[in-house]
Order: sequence, then C-alpha cells, then structure tokens
Amino acid sequence: MRDVSIAGIGLTPVGEHWEISLRDLAQEAASEALDNAGTTAVDAIYVANALAGQISRQEHLGPLVADVLGLRGVEAIRVEAADASGGMALRQAYLAVASGAIETALVVGVEKFTDLVASPRQSALASSLDAEFEAEQGATPAAMAALIMQRYLYEYGLTLEAFAGFSENAHANGALNEHAMYRNRLRPGMFASAPVVAPPVGLFDAAPEGDGAAALVISSSEHARDMGAVPVRIVASAAASDSLAVQDRANPLALEAARISARKAFQQAGLGPDDIDLFELHDSFTIMAALSLEAAGFAETGQGHRMARPEMIGLGGSLPIGTFGGLKARGNPGGATGVYQAVEIVQQLRGVAGKNQVEGARIGMAQNLGAMGGTAVTHIFQPLD
Amino acid sequence: MRDVSIAGIGLTPVGEHWEISLRDLAQEAASEALDNAGTTAVDAIYVANALAGQISRQEHLGPLVADVLGLRGVEAIRVEAADASGGMALRQAYLAVASGAIETALVVGVEKFTDLVASPRQSALASSLDAEFEAEQGATPAAMAALIMQRYLYEYGLTLEAFAGFSENAHANGALNEHAMYRNRLRPGMFASAPVVAPPVGLFDAAPEGDGAAALVISSSEHARDMGAVPVRIVASAAASDSLAVQDRANPLALEAARISARKAFQQAGLGPDDIDLFELHDSFTIMAALSLEAAGFAETGQGHRMARPEMIGLGGSLPIGTFGGLKARGNPGGATGVYQAVEIVQQLRGVAGKNQVEGARIGMAQNLGAMGGTAVTHIFQPLD
Repeated sequence: MRDVSIAGIGLTPVGEHWEISLRDLAQEAASEALDNAGTTAVDAIYVANALAGQISRQEHLGPLVADVLGLRGVEAIRVEAADASGGMALRQAYLAVASGAIETALVVGVEKFTDLVASPRQSALASSLDAEFEAEQGATPAAMAALIMQRYLYEYGLTLEAFAGFSENAHANGALNEHAMYRNRLRPGMFASAPVVAPPVGLFDAAPEGDGAAALVISSSEHARDMGAVPVRIVASAAASDSLAVQDRANPLALEAARISARKAFQQAGLGPDDIDLFELHDSFTIMAALSLEAAGFAETGQGHRMARPEMIGLGGSLPIGTFGGLKARGNPGGATGVYQAVEIVQQLRGVAGKNQVEGARIGMAQNLGAMGGTAVTHIFQPLD
Repeated sequence: MRDVSIAGIGLTPVGEHWEISLRDLAQEAASEALDNAGTTAVDAIYVANALAGQISRQEHLGPLVADVLGLRGVEAIRVEAADASGGMALRQAYLAVASGAIETALVVGVEKFTDLVASPRQSALASSLDAEFEAEQGATPAAMAALIMQRYLYEYGLTLEAFAGFSENAHANGALNEHAMYRNRLRPGMFASAPVVAPPVGLFDAAPEGDGAAALVISSSEHARDMGAVPVRIVASAAASDSLAVQDRANPLALEAARISARKAFQQAGLGPDDIDLFELHDSFTIMAALSLEAAGFAETGQGHRMARPEMIGLGGSLPIGTFGGLKARGNPGGATGVYQAVEIVQQLRGVAGKNQVEGARIGMAQNLGAMGGTAVTHIFQPLD
C-alpha cells in the first residue's frame, strides 16, 4: 500500500442556506480544496451525502458534482452511511489512492437540509435508523438518543447536568469559528433551563442539522509533497458496523463499531489514546460524546461524562474535542460531517486554525458515526514530515 | 496493486417480490455467495442500492446487511450511483482488495421496487436524473430515453423496427433463465404492435424494474485460489462520469462515460473489442443497447442497431449480449443490476451457465450505466489460470 496524504481542504459555513443549492454548496467547498492543493488534476471524486434523495429529490450525486466542477468524465461516486458518509467517503478515497489505481482523489461532503422542513425532515432523518424496527414505530434519532441517555443516567446515578460541559465547550469553540452555525456561548444556567427535545435530551444536548459542504484533495504522499499546501498524512483509516437497531445490541451503552474502528486505527498507526493531541468526535448528542470517549479508549466505561470539563476537553485541555464547535455548535451537516472533521484537523495540524488553534497539535483523530453508531469510521492524521 | 478475483457468487430471481423484504433479499443472495466461496471470513461489505431511502424509507444499508448476515462489526458501506451502483460497488471492493488493506470483500446489490407503486416509484426513479433541470420539469428515465431514441431515428433515417432484435434476443435468453423476470419469447409482430410507453419507446424497448439481490465474494487472487469455487479474475476495472443532464451534452447520442470507461478497461487489460467473448451491456432501453455497443467500440457511430440480429448478439453469435436476458428480460433490479451482470459473467466463464451458456467463453465484459449514462462502469473478467 502507498502512503496517502491530504493535499488540500475547503469548506463552507454550516447553517440554513436557503439561497444556495446542493450543487452550489458542493462546488464552493470543492473548488476551495482544489485551489488549496493547487491542482485540478483529479482522477476520482467521492461525494459523501446522506439524504439528498429524500430531501432534494436528487440521487446520483457523483456525476452532478463532477460536472459542476468542470471535471466531467472523471469517475465519480456517492457514498452513503448516514452521518458517517463523510468518514466513509474519505476511507474509500484513501483505499483507492493507496491501491495505486488512483493518483489524486477529491472527497466532497455535502448536505442540504433546508429544502425540506420540520416533520418530513425528521422522517427522512429517521430512515438512517432501522426502518422496520425503529422508524416505522415512530422513533427518530433524538428519541433513540433519549432512550440511550436515560439508560446512562440510570446506570451511573447521574442527572442531566453531568453533560452540560460538552455543550458549553462546543458553544465556546463555535463562538470562535466563523464557519459555525451557532456562535453564541452558553451563559450559566442556560443548559439546565433548556427546552426539552425528548426527555432527558434537551435543546443543548442535540446538535442542529445544518446545510454545508466540505472537501479534501487526497493524493499519494509522494505526489502531495509537490502540490500547493502543507500535506497531512493519513496514518490510519478504519471502519466498522454495529446493529442498526439499538434494541439488538447486548449493551446499548457500548458503541461497538466505534470501539472496533478506534482499536484498528490505533493498531495501524502504532499509537494509543495518550498520543492523540485532539479528537474530533461525533457529538450528535451529548450522550454520544460521552459514549464515544469511552468507546475510543479515552475514558473508562461509565466515566466519559467526567471529561466534560474545560481542563479536559477545552482548547487548552488534555484532550481537546470539537475544536471548531463540533456537531453541536459548528452544526451537523449530515453526510458532510466526517469531511468537516478531517478539514478541521488538517487546519489544526497545519497550525492555521486561528482562534480555534490547539497549540502544538501534532496528531489528530476523527471519529464519524452513522445514526446511533451503526457505522463508525476512525482516521488518524499527522503532518507529513 | 494486488491481483483480484471473484471467489463466490449468489443471486435471487428478479421479479415482484411482494412477500420478501429488502433485508431478506440481500441476505439470500449474500449467503449464497459466501457458500459458493466457502467462506464467512469477510473484511468489508459493499452494498449497492439506488433507491431504498425513497422507496423503503431505509437508508444506511451497510450495517443493516452486515447484521442480517451475522457479520456485525465488519465495516460496511453503501454505494449509490443510480443503476450503476452495482458496478461502482464492485469497483470499490476491487480497489480495497487491490490496495492490500482488505483481504476479502463481499459485494451485495439489492433493490426493492415493490414497496412503492406506479407514480411515486416513477418520481423516485426520476431522482437519478438531474433534479433541477430534468426531473422537476416532468422528465422520467423513459421520457429521456424517448428523446434520445427519437434523435437516433432521425439522424440515421430509421424506424423503431431497427431495434426489435435487441428485445427479441433478450426475451429469447430470458426464456432459458430461471432467475429471469420475464420468460416469454416475443412472437413475430409483438414488438411492432407493442403499446407505446413514451413515443417512440414501446413496451418491449423498456426494461422492467424488478426486485432482486445478487452478491459477489472478492478476494486477492492468491487467496481466492484456496477458496471453494473456481475463481474469476478481474482484469480491468474503470469508471467515468458524464453530465447528469442530457441537455448539457454536446452530442446526446454519444455515451461519453461509457466510451471513456471502456477505453480505460481495454487499456488495463491489454485487450480490444475483438477479444471479448460476451458483453453484458446496460439495455435499460433498446436505444441504450445500441449506444453502448457504439461507445464501447463494438460498432461504429450510428451502426449499433445493425448488431440487433441473432447471428451477432445471440448466444451463438459473434458477440453475445444479455446472455441471461439482460435488463429487458432478466429484469432491471436498479442498484443490483451491475452485480447481476458480474455474477452472470462468472457463471459463463465457469461454464455453469446451463441453457444460457456461451460455448467457449473465456473473456467477459460488463458495462453498467447510471440513469442515461451519467455514470458508467466497465469491468473485464477472465478465469484465473
């Protein structure tokens, strides 16, 4: 296998982009990534998207995106793994370049939620769950998160307040990020008095869906050195699955796919949790942040919530997470989320993260989850020396 | 890059499977492929599907399929490229195994149309076209095929009868195939007197959507030798894109993506059109069969229709096509179609195609198209010596 690096990055702000279409969002992020890499010589395009078929009535995004970029003819594919689509698309591009068949690949994550509002959007989101055993019974992602969170509170004798620190950290970091959907800090008491989404999940536990697009140019490390920007090496790439229906899991508090993919990634990189300088995790809900920290080996079982403190997860903490606001404040652009995570880590490792910079960051890890962890994809990145 | 082979195949009949769910169809085909290969040690699963989100309200098929197979934990991904999903999934599995990161992969194509009937299904199918510039204006795949076919008839001074031979060949081959959706031969005069779908496209020009699933076990050639069945080597794998909207193409009769991917595949294999013993093409409409033959280099521009004769494309002809009935008679199971094509070629090259056998077949080629050729994927296969 060949060594593989990220040679260019691009992204749009996350938010409600009523006036920008799906294709225009994709084009904006992808053009920026190609500019950043200083190339238009792309051999394959990987489009990550979760729900455009149901929301925008547009499937078959591969050739659509290739065409708007002036890259008609280049092979182009869409990867779908719910909110883990972005991580999975990055992984496919990585494998294609590693194989030697593809020299340079473009990964574009794009999601457009605002073509559909309220109830139909929730119904579309629920199609990432098990349709027969969860969604058709009325479950939504927020409802499933509520069941899992209730169980966690019960098992460990906690109240919701234990999770406040995750949300406060995300909003503090999002306030510094001009691409974030929410740039407000949480004032004291706001978390505790938040409206309830699905008990016990409150408004500040749940990440907002937002429109957005992010893109990466992936190439062999050898070739990436000669391109326009500081290359960042992909030192590990791993993915795993879990049962789609949460009811089928022996332990609903164990994110098995997250655990397996993190373990494989650490093995590939020859690293462990102590080596990671920052962790972009999938905080679609605060409970998922706690469970991800546990599954990835950063906390013992049942102890993830204890990390919800600035000295642990803040920009100057022992393990910064959601450094640009995470899903909670930067926003969760569905199938694009995993690409945002990778773009943000590249910014950190290049030292161009501005106010969101983690000082001295050398090794970054991203973990992207689909639905309630049915899919998990873990990548580890390091500057190419 | 490592040498890659197909080690096992499985498929279900194509048809209206009202009583079988999406997950059960996938399981049936995948289990058969694993049995055929004599293994359950799979490192990655690639699910090809075009429309389950809209039709069955089920996205995130990767972990769903992994779970029903008892392979929970194995990384699993869904690939979507409209009706070219199957070919694209095969290509991703090929690259992953070629890279060395994956030893053995399972490719499962599955499509379930009968969860949705008539008008909503046409609307879902239209989402593979350009949503803004085609589908929202009322276009469906059949309407787009009609526009292209009308142009072809005009350019070359033909009548619809020139295409009868494609349909008659498909039905003749489908009549021999127990997995085919339609097993009736076309009697003389039936083609000419068929009801009109969208003028000039008639009932026997248009392939029927059918439920179905097919699966392949893909492994390094070295490993495939030690598995349970005769391995078939993937000697070429290539893909390309074209503009999604047909209106944006300089020549609507040139399938550019098909041409590019075929040329690349021939280059990789060191072969040319004369070396191919059978060609599983994408006859979603008879006009697409003619255009595919031209784009892939088997006929000159404007001459593809001349091949619609038994001595050319029949099982004993110079270039057999649609040997198990093609999309027209075996049926078009959407995202699974490209996997069916590969399974059928493996049956031919193993010499186990029964009444559909092409005598002495040594080299087979498959070309899978998405929508009106926005995506094209070409593979060439040979027995592993």
